[in-house]
Amino acid sequence: MGSIDLFDTLSPLDFRYYGRSKQAFGALQPYLSETAFVRYLAKVEAALAKVLAKQGICTEKIAKEIEKASQRVTAEEVAKPYVHFTATSHDIICSADAARFKDFTNAVLVPLLIQLEKTLILSARREKSTPQIGRTHGQHAEPITFGFAIAHYVSRLGKRILEIKETGNNLRGKLAGAVGAYNASSLLIKEPELFEQEVLAQLGIKPSPISTQVVEAEYLTDYCHAIVSCFGVLANLADDMRHLQRSEIQEVAEAFGEKQVGSSTMPHKRNPINFENVKSMWKTFMPRMTSVYLDQICEHQRDLTNSASSRFVPELLAGLYLATLRMDKVMSKLVVDKAALKKNFEQNKEMIAAEPAYILLAAHQHPDAHEAIRELTLKAQSSGKPLTKLILEDKKLAPYLKKFTKQQLGLLRNPELYIGKSEQKTESVCKDWEEALEL
Amino acid sequence: MGSIDLFDTLSPLDFRYYGRSKQAFGALQPYLSETAFVRYLAKVEAALAKVLAKQGICTEKIAKEIEKASQRVTAEEVAKPYVHFTATSHDIICSADAARFKDFTNAVLVPLLIQLEKTLILSARREKSTPQIGRTHGQHAEPITFGFAIAHYVSRLGKRILEIKETGNNLRGKLAGAVGAYNASSLLIKEPELFEQEVLAQLGIKPSPISTQVVEAEYLTDYCHAIVSCFGVLANLADDMRHLQRSEIQEVAEAFGEKQVGSSTMPHKRNPINFENVKSMWKTFMPRMTSVYLDQICEHQRDLTNSASSRFVPELLAGLYLATLRMDKVMSKLVVDKAALKKNFEQNKEMIAAEPAYILLAAHQHPDAHEAIRELTLKAQSSGKPLTKLILEDKKLAPYLKKFTKQQLGLLRNPELYIGKSEQKTESVCKDWEEALEL
Amino acid sequence: MGSIDLFDTLSPLDFRYYGRSKQAFGALQPYLSETAFVRYLAKVEAALAKVLAKQGICTEKIAKEIEKASQRVTAEEVAKPYVHFTATSHDIICSADAARFKDFTNAVLVPLLIQLEKTLILSARREKSTPQIGRTHGQHAEPITFGFAIAHYVSRLGKRILEIKETGNNLRGKLAGAVGAYNASSLLIKEPELFEQEVLAQLGIKPSPISTQVVEAEYLTDYCHAIVSCFGVLANLADDMRHLQRSEIQEVAEAFGEKQVGSSTMPHKRNPINFENVKSMWKTFMPRMTSVYLDQICEHQRDLTNSASSRFVPELLAGLYLATLRMDKVMSKLVVDKAALKKNFEQNKEMIAAEPAYILLAAHQHPDAHEAIRELTLKAQSSGKPLTKLILEDKKLAPYLKKFTKQQLGLLRNPELYIGKSEQKTESVCKDWEEALEL
Amino acid sequence: MGSIDLFDTLSPLDFRYYGRSKQAFGALQPYLSETAFVRYLAKVEAALAKVLAKQGICTEKIAKEIEKASQRVTAEEVAKPYVHFTATSHDIICSADAARFKDFTNAVLVPLLIQLEKTLILSARREKSTPQIGRTHGQHAEPITFGFAIAHYVSRLGKRILEIKETGNNLRGKLAGAVGAYNASSLLIKEPELFEQEVLAQLGIKPSPISTQVVEAEYLTDYCHAIVSCFGVLANLADDMRHLQRSEIQEVAEAFGEKQVGSSTMPHKRNPINFENVKSMWKTFMPRMTSVYLDQICEHQRDLTNSASSRFVPELLAGLYLATLRMDKVMSKLVVDKAALKKNFEQNKEMIAAEPAYILLAAHQHPDAHEAIRELTLKAQSSGKPLTKLILEDKKLAPYLKKFTKQQLGLLRNPELYIGKSEQKTESVCKDWEEALEL
Repeated sequence: MGSIDLFDTLSPLDFRYYGRSKQAFGALQPYLSETAFVRYLAKVEAALAKVLAKQGICTEKIAKEIEKASQRVTAEEVAKPYVHFTATSHDIICSADAARFKDFTNAVLVPLLIQLEKTLILSARREKSTPQIGRTHGQHAEPITFGFAIAHYVSRLGKRILEIKETGNNLRGKLAGAVGAYNASSLLIKEPELFEQEVLAQLGIKPSPISTQVVEAEYLTDYCHAIVSCFGVLANLADDMRHLQRSEIQEVAEAFGEKQVGSSTMPHKRNPINFENVKSMWKTFMPRMTSVYLDQICEHQRDLTNSASSRFVPELLAGLYLATLRMDKVMSKLVVDKAALKKNFEQNKEMIAAEPAYILLAAHQHPDAHEAIRELTLKAQSSGKPLTKLILEDKKLAPYLKKFTKQQLGLLRNPELYIGKSEQKTESVCKDWEEALEL
Repeated sequence: MGSIDLFDTLSPLDFRYYGRSKQAFGALQPYLSETAFVRYLAKVEAALAKVLAKQGICTEKIAKEIEKASQRVTAEEVAKPYVHFTATSHDIICSADAARFKDFTNAVLVPLLIQLEKTLILSARREKSTPQIGRTHGQHAEPITFGFAIAHYVSRLGKRILEIKETGNNLRGKLAGAVGAYNASSLLIKEPELFEQEVLAQLGIKPSPISTQVVEAEYLTDYCHAIVSCFGVLANLADDMRHLQRSEIQEVAEAFGEKQVGSSTMPHKRNPINFENVKSMWKTFMPRMTSVYLDQICEHQRDLTNSASSRFVPELLAGLYLATLRMDKVMSKLVVDKAALKKNFEQNKEMIAAEPAYILLAAHQHPDAHEAIRELTLKAQSSGKPLTKLILEDKKLAPYLKKFTKQQLGLLRNPELYIGKSEQKTESVCKDWEEALEL
Repeated sequence: MGSIDLFDTLSPLDFRYYGRSKQAFGALQPYLSETAFVRYLAKVEAALAKVLAKQGICTEKIAKEIEKASQRVTAEEVAKPYVHFTATSHDIICSADAARFKDFTNAVLVPLLIQLEKTLILSARREKSTPQIGRTHGQHAEPITFGFAIAHYVSRLGKRILEIKETGNNLRGKLAGAVGAYNASSLLIKEPELFEQEVLAQLGIKPSPISTQVVEAEYLTDYCHAIVSCFGVLANLADDMRHLQRSEIQEVAEAFGEKQVGSSTMPHKRNPINFENVKSMWKTFMPRMTSVYLDQICEHQRDLTNSASSRFVPELLAGLYLATLRMDKVMSKLVVDKAALKKNFEQNKEMIAAEPAYILLAAHQHPDAHEAIRELTLKAQSSGKPLTKLILEDKKLAPYLKKFTKQQLGLLRNPELYIGKSEQKTESVCKDWEEALEL
Repeated sequence: MGSIDLFDTLSPLDFRYYGRSKQAFGALQPYLSETAFVRYLAKVEAALAKVLAKQGICTEKIAKEIEKASQRVTAEEVAKPYVHFTATSHDIICSADAARFKDFTNAVLVPLLIQLEKTLILSARREKSTPQIGRTHGQHAEPITFGFAIAHYVSRLGKRILEIKETGNNLRGKLAGAVGAYNASSLLIKEPELFEQEVLAQLGIKPSPISTQVVEAEYLTDYCHAIVSCFGVLANLADDMRHLQRSEIQEVAEAFGEKQVGSSTMPHKRNPINFENVKSMWKTFMPRMTSVYLDQICEHQRDLTNSASSRFVPELLAGLYLATLRMDKVMSKLVVDKAALKKNFEQNKEMIAAEPAYILLAAHQHPDAHEAIRELTLKAQSSGKPLTKLILEDKKLAPYLKKFTKQQLGLLRNPELYIGKSEQKTESVCKDWEEALEL
């Protein structure tokens, strides 16, 4: 077969993101390459032989020889999956895929996602009290803290990790023959379903409840949904960070090598290329979920129109791995610019007081607090005077303001205190996920 | 506002599948129409008032008045969602959507899916011993039973029902204010998170672990995935049945009214229009999952670019409801033509014996059973003689055939017995799902 | 059949965007409703009868009666498409759809898109000299003008209008019978292809080059691509405008009614809800292109699995209409804030000079201009001194600066002049499209 | 950089469909690999230098040196695109991509598609008179010829070839600098737009009418639509052929090597694996059009969120190439089984006469021909008598049958003559496309 110059590959995955990165190659090759596939086919064969020997259908000696051979087998030696006694090709293929995706999930993907989760928790905790203006519609709304915004992603990513773990560990194999009815195996084996169970247990997986030539499609469909929806969470985080890096906002920055030139012709620029890349990878891979949904449909006991398409599933897994790796690197070195946070916060600081003002006035029985504050807001805009000053000096409001507690008055004067439960929520979300994921 | 002539609507849902069907209208209007939406907004308001009263923030009298008003409120009276004390519009909207989708799931969708599941179980059990030639690549492969093929869908549909139930009952509300940090509510309420929990408990839902202006996106995303992947199972069943209705196969038929004309110009035709419709609805709705994945991305504490798109989610639910209703109707009257099943089975009956023959020969120590049978297969094709006859008369095979048990020889003579565990598996799958779904 | 309360409809199109808007209803109902569909079916029937009479197959009297009836026919009277002599249902349906989509394109959609194009041209021309900092990666890059940025959309929208026009006017009908081979019509008509041509010419459309039961799929596929890719241009414009409205940027604003409250609890906000809506509608409709691609596949002379799905195509057209209408309204009143444009421009004004500086130095034979300027850039950042000052005072650069023309030196001092061909290009693009679209 | 073992690649394209196929590698590597990309970057640089020299901005000598270097440049030597005077990276990248996709279109893709078109024309012509029962809903409908069914694909594929040619030759480059306004180039060049035109003319492409940092997105979007919709035509053809290969239909077969084993355990099978593969590749690549539509959206003068995703476009082109290559191979050896065609035709031959019968009766003034024939149809089904016999012997029909011409009566007796214009249409479609494509 031989090898190919990396520059001659077609796939940007192979050329750009995997083939030239020791880290990515080391993580993905053992599970997602053709080499890995062949290795797992051999594993299934060995498991099958072992249980055949146990049942007395073949000798222990043969089983051991097969096991030995299967450990030596390389991609070069196995041109096509070798198919064994009573099994159909897809008994071996489906089971090998389930086993390698499961192992990849547990050995590579979930640990990496957990590493990112830890990075986010660290960041959320560190900045849990750093005021940031909350933004809705891209407009300044009410205050939160930077850590609180990150905690939102701690929670969403945490839930996706659980989903990936659960669906990845629930992938199923099969040993039910060409049409799923154990036609061949039931000729020789009394309890072919128990036999199937036992073989697959060697690989750490369970059988499909009922098969055609292939496993029920939804186990893989659910797993891919977990992958793709996790990708969506990363893409959302990437977008948020990108926008916070805009020249006019600059609340965060990707750490930048000292000699790095921002752009060949615009040396002052600090481009959010890593966050852009994560978003772009999501744009590449999210639509592939449609292929997975198309592959749910398989005629009768199987047509082969899912054959080529299902071979691309490992690329989806590689895509999420690469995006997570990049996201972790950039988030673990993310520079949070407190001066910029403060500057942006100040921009509409006065107006922010409007909401607590009218709520507290109403709570203290003002009959039409919302309208009263709205008028002062317009007055502040037209006069240029600070809204809080107008409120505190307003004669009609005075009787109500007298009833305010010290803390309540303090809030009017310092709207950056109006962060609600941002700090406590940040802390509790981080703690909950540390427990749920046993970090 | 008024009403619209059904013929003037834009949406095929409104005109064709819902507006003119008493059954569909009755099932969907209470949860998925704008009327329903307004009704649920009012429910959230009432729940909020009730707990506010309990906390002493408003009087019991006011809470009761609000509750009363909320029961009377009609779509006509509420032009836009009315927004209450400390709550932001999306506190009410997100919670109302979660509650109505949950109620729809439990009251309408799952019961209907279970009705279809029962129909499939009935059909699987009834035909569990009816031999059918299994098909892979559209080619005759090994025998199964018709019931076994249906049992495959019993299992896949069952799993989707559980998924829809689980994700539908895990939809989340919120009462965390404009940026999710309980800014306003924490001014007046000591434990705003407990308060949020208590209000939402009135509606039978839980809060989002952490919110921005809206609930974490993945609760709805997972629910939509359950819906869409369930749709895929129906589409696959529809395709299988469509193809079994081909003129050359005719193993099944949609029950047909006596006076129904197949086609205006081709009166002999029996078109599988219901199965075609289910497949077509899947083609309509499956791609909409991409909109749902796009809506995972929401900038900062929220942009409104998911506002219009999320309004179309009820259509997705309606789509699955309509397809399930139709599928149940047609499957419950499905005509299984045993004569046709037998005729198709006979077509390659002889060749079917090839597999058990070589497996049993190998099990009885024939050194190269696969090749021996392959040669006889070619001989059968060229000579036109039955393969089984050639096998049973072959001198070189005779020493091995002598070792065959009576049952094994019987299988060679009657390949329709070569159905493996089709019957037992059909039965066990049906039983497992009756238990899992408490049918 | 009757009518339905708008609040009881399922479709957000029917309830929210169409049923309650006189303008949208008036524009869409005559082409995209079921009423319209029936009216066009009748038109096809009338055209058919007219040509049948011309050929002497039916009498002139019958043809006139049919024509008369077809003008009176209402949706109420025609429960299902009535099918006539030698024609199969889909002869009538395909032709009616082609004719009504074509008419909609010419009478409604293209004129509205041209209205938006004019609005954009007006805006581009008005602001063609208004400096704006160009942004790449969300970072300040090199200067352009606001009009130049809009001209980009003039060009992209213009090209889409031509595409919609071309593909919409190239939609095809058919009159080739149940399997496309003119089986029935060739019994009675000598030249059934000429006959087909003549009937369709009455409706202003041409026949499909060869049909099955339906027209070749790609005519509609291309039209839908034109629609969806035009939607993408609007979505991009919406996103750009949304971001320019961010609190920290504020270069544009949607015109706002004086008494309009930005948000119930945040009265100071000016939310870009119209641009958000356009983006959201794109998220709703763009993925539906996948349904269109799925409908390219139709088994043999036709299966009906594209029947329900193709009924949703009018929604796609309505979606683009609604987004365009909204976009035109908001763009025609868009407020461009020159003070904000200037303020943002000033932010990195000094750094902007870096690029022309090194290019002009290089052009004047400086051996390593890029590195020289990069060093001064870093010095400017660390020292806080203006870059242009550092450049103009640098001793090593002096010999080269001496060679600069007055205009070149002026550019270093006033980077807002460094807008390249922004003005000329804006003007030429606007002129080109006025000519191409005959505005 | 080095090379990678093919078995270690991630991409099924690299491992399975390209890296091991001399033919595919030879066709795709020169245009779609990274090597090709680098080669085209160098071409753009050389073109740029040449025109710079012509304008006197650099010397002829330098231009020649650059040209020479650019011919020698290998992927190894160019780690990243080298960027030249006044040009921004994306001037070079966009132009190189446009040029290589264009060249690929003209040199590889269109010729291969034309080869398939010729194969289809040959097959259509050869079988233009071979009767086949037309199928709608998978049900026997009216007769066509096998060639007529293929001619449908001749027409659809022909139209896609024109579309690919047109859009592929309309891809655009740019040389308009970092924000598209010719900021840098207009410092040194009087007419930067003419300069841009001249450089791109060297590569055989035109400039984008107006650019940001990148070319207007729709040129590539339209090209990808042409690619994806062409893929849909192949997928439809593949599906039709797959179904015609069903065990019960068997009207066509993939040519099969003599010693080839159909299946390891089912030696009698002839699986349509090539058609299945084409369908499966379509399932893989069609959804990627969504990524292309997502990439239409690019913020302001550009964000980089289309960077990774656009790198996958060459895979889309490779996908169509591979599917076309396979389709051509299998269609050029397709075995059409006339005996099977006849056998299937006979199955409902009698019923087929129903349609011409009622049409001719009606034409001969029978007052209710449709109903009369419908009743005889039911009678034929219940009595088992041939419909044509019942018609010809029916007393009430006799007065009308007398008026039938000899040819008309012949048609009733031989429904295989009821093929309409199948032969003429097949011929005219083939001829039209031979002319349009200059075959």
